[in-house]
Amino acid sequence: MSETQRTELEKLGEFGLIQELTKGFEIQHSSSIKGVGDDAAVIDCGNWYQLISTDMLIEGIHFNLMYTPLKHLGYKSVVVNLSDIYAMNGTPEQVTVSIAVSNRFSLEALKEFYSGIELACKLYNVDLIGGDTTSSQSGFAISVTAVGKVEKSQVIYRNGAKENDLLIVTGDLGAAFMGLQLLEREKEVFQSAPGVQPDLDGNDYILERQLKPEARKDIIEMFQKMELKPSAMIDISDGLASESLHLAKAGDLGFAIYEDKVPIDPTTFSKAREFNLDPITCAMNGGEDYELLFTINQSDYDKIKGNPNMTPIGHMTDKGSGCHLISSGGSAIPVQAQGWDAFQTRS
Amino acid sequence: MSETQRTELEKLGEFGLIQELTKGFEIQHSSSIKGVGDDAAVIDCGNWYQLISTDMLIEGIHFNLMYTPLKHLGYKSVVVNLSDIYAMNGTPEQVTVSIAVSNRFSLEALKEFYSGIELACKLYNVDLIGGDTTSSQSGFAISVTAVGKVEKSQVIYRNGAKENDLLIVTGDLGAAFMGLQLLEREKEVFQSAPGVQPDLDGNDYILERQLKPEARKDIIEMFQKMELKPSAMIDISDGLASESLHLAKAGDLGFAIYEDKVPIDPTTFSKAREFNLDPITCAMNGGEDYELLFTINQSDYDKIKGNPNMTPIGHMTDKGSGCHLISSGGSAIPVQAQGWDAFQTRS
Repeated sequence: MSETQRTELEKLGEFGLIQELTKGFEIQHSSSIKGVGDDAAVIDCGNWYQLISTDMLIEGIHFNLMYTPLKHLGYKSVVVNLSDIYAMNGTPEQVTVSIAVSNRFSLEALKEFYSGIELACKLYNVDLIGGDTTSSQSGFAISVTAVGKVEKSQVIYRNGAKENDLLIVTGDLGAAFMGLQLLEREKEVFQSAPGVQPDLDGNDYILERQLKPEARKDIIEMFQKMELKPSAMIDISDGLASESLHLAKAGDLGFAIYEDKVPIDPTTFSKAREFNLDPITCAMNGGEDYELLFTINQSDYDKIKGNPNMTPIGHMTDKGSGCHLISSGGSAIPVQAQGWDAFQTRS
Repeated sequence: MSETQRTELEKLGEFGLIQELTKGFEIQHSSSIKGVGDDAAVIDCGNWYQLISTDMLIEGIHFNLMYTPLKHLGYKSVVVNLSDIYAMNGTPEQVTVSIAVSNRFSLEALKEFYSGIELACKLYNVDLIGGDTTSSQSGFAISVTAVGKVEKSQVIYRNGAKENDLLIVTGDLGAAFMGLQLLEREKEVFQSAPGVQPDLDGNDYILERQLKPEARKDIIEMFQKMELKPSAMIDISDGLASESLHLAKAGDLGFAIYEDKVPIDPTTFSKAREFNLDPITCAMNGGEDYELLFTINQSDYDKIKGNPNMTPIGHMTDKGSGCHLISSGGSAIPVQAQGWDAFQTRS
């Protein structure tokens, strides 16, 4: 290790760091179709492609046990990984779950956690096939790997978008972020006045989006029925801004997203206003929505037209045109990734 | 969560805990051939079986950065997972590596860690195809998943041993444990008198076994050349006692291991004596050797006879005969798992 140089991780951000750390690595097997840099890795299994995705969730960074029920946490740990498999247009079939826990957890607490895993496995039709169980000095660390499959001709990468392709998002955005804001506020209220009951009434939607998100299995099934194959796809874990930029970068393109097209649920909208936040900022940068963002050729527009699950929000442009959010007033605002970055301090 | 009951994790041990947590889970896919309970999970890929193994390494539990060079740690993180693939008679082809680190680590430090990963990938011919990189509040957590393949007819499970099968171990045992004892002793010396240089001379072998273990790729290749297919196999990560008991339990058998047959390197032997430890106890319960333990039909004995890499140490018996270590004096000592257990306090 160089004694003379010290580069702080904060300077790089997660994606810069991954690039730095893996740049010297070479692929040796022809079965390794896609490595680092998409939602999931792709392995050639002969008759189909296998998809492998892995995520780590760390206590105090990704979740706070003060307001996260362990069953929800187990559920979410699986779902966020399945979302990466769906983002490749694949079907998840197996998961492994590894945990490191300190002895402040009891068997009963871990059973709660695993009941959430079991529920997610049942609902998404995946098998728990392995994992590791170990102790930690203090916090709770979770590592889930999801394994899925996809017909070779049906795999969708981040880099397939073409100029003029429409940019489509599923569901609505920003709700999980507003759920988090609400939970954080009530936690602070509780910490300063422990007797006060949390004020969570009427906020079920945004709370559920944060605590018990779903992956868009239904969308992948719709694609099959509609005979639609998007040109590029990614799941929205870090906010619309960050994911759109990934699609643009991977496809060597730009994009224009129209502010007034971005789907935001009324609950999210009013809660953002209550918190003095701009709703579009919550949608662009909030993260953890686990919706899908994809591009289609304009000739496929009729297939998704009127589908309440899929909202066209803009289109891909040439790279030189840049990446912009077009405001309701018509001005073009450059989009920068301000999504959740594991190495930036959360404000 | 039940408010009335609290079962401490220490009471269960790692394997009891896994059993408790996963007992309600059902397998839904015919492609999930083997789930929780072997060295690796097995997925049917049509023409072959795919093997998936995952391990978590936690700072302060599995490694101490005071004496573990980051490059060695990266190397070891990969190797211990590959060992699980070899233990199924498979060939690893891909790995994913996820890390959670605090900002006390610099880019340069992580590059050291990844240089060890890269070296292991090169030497064992595996591709790094993905992972996750995130922050932690304090410690360093590593999760590696290894993916391999094996011909369907060649997969070896833990449960295939038969009565009278010979029990064979590769390499020698106890060295990694003695390496750890030495490092721990020198750490304590250093902490009480920081000026004193560590006394590690002449201990290269046991130190390397602890800090930079190798997985037995060569053994799997030998099996092919010898046209030998063991009846059961497991890798030795938790000590010979624990792994022999796994084979016995999985096969509904007992075993007899002869103390004077257990291969122990002279360095390990003399270091154990220096530490007032019984060398056979180090071999039985030390762990982290990453050797292979397998059983063969007696008719295959000629294939391994005289092979310096493979030592017959005993044989499988019927279950009723129990699991015993036969001492040099001829007395039968019941074998209990005292290997490293993540939920027991290390003494």
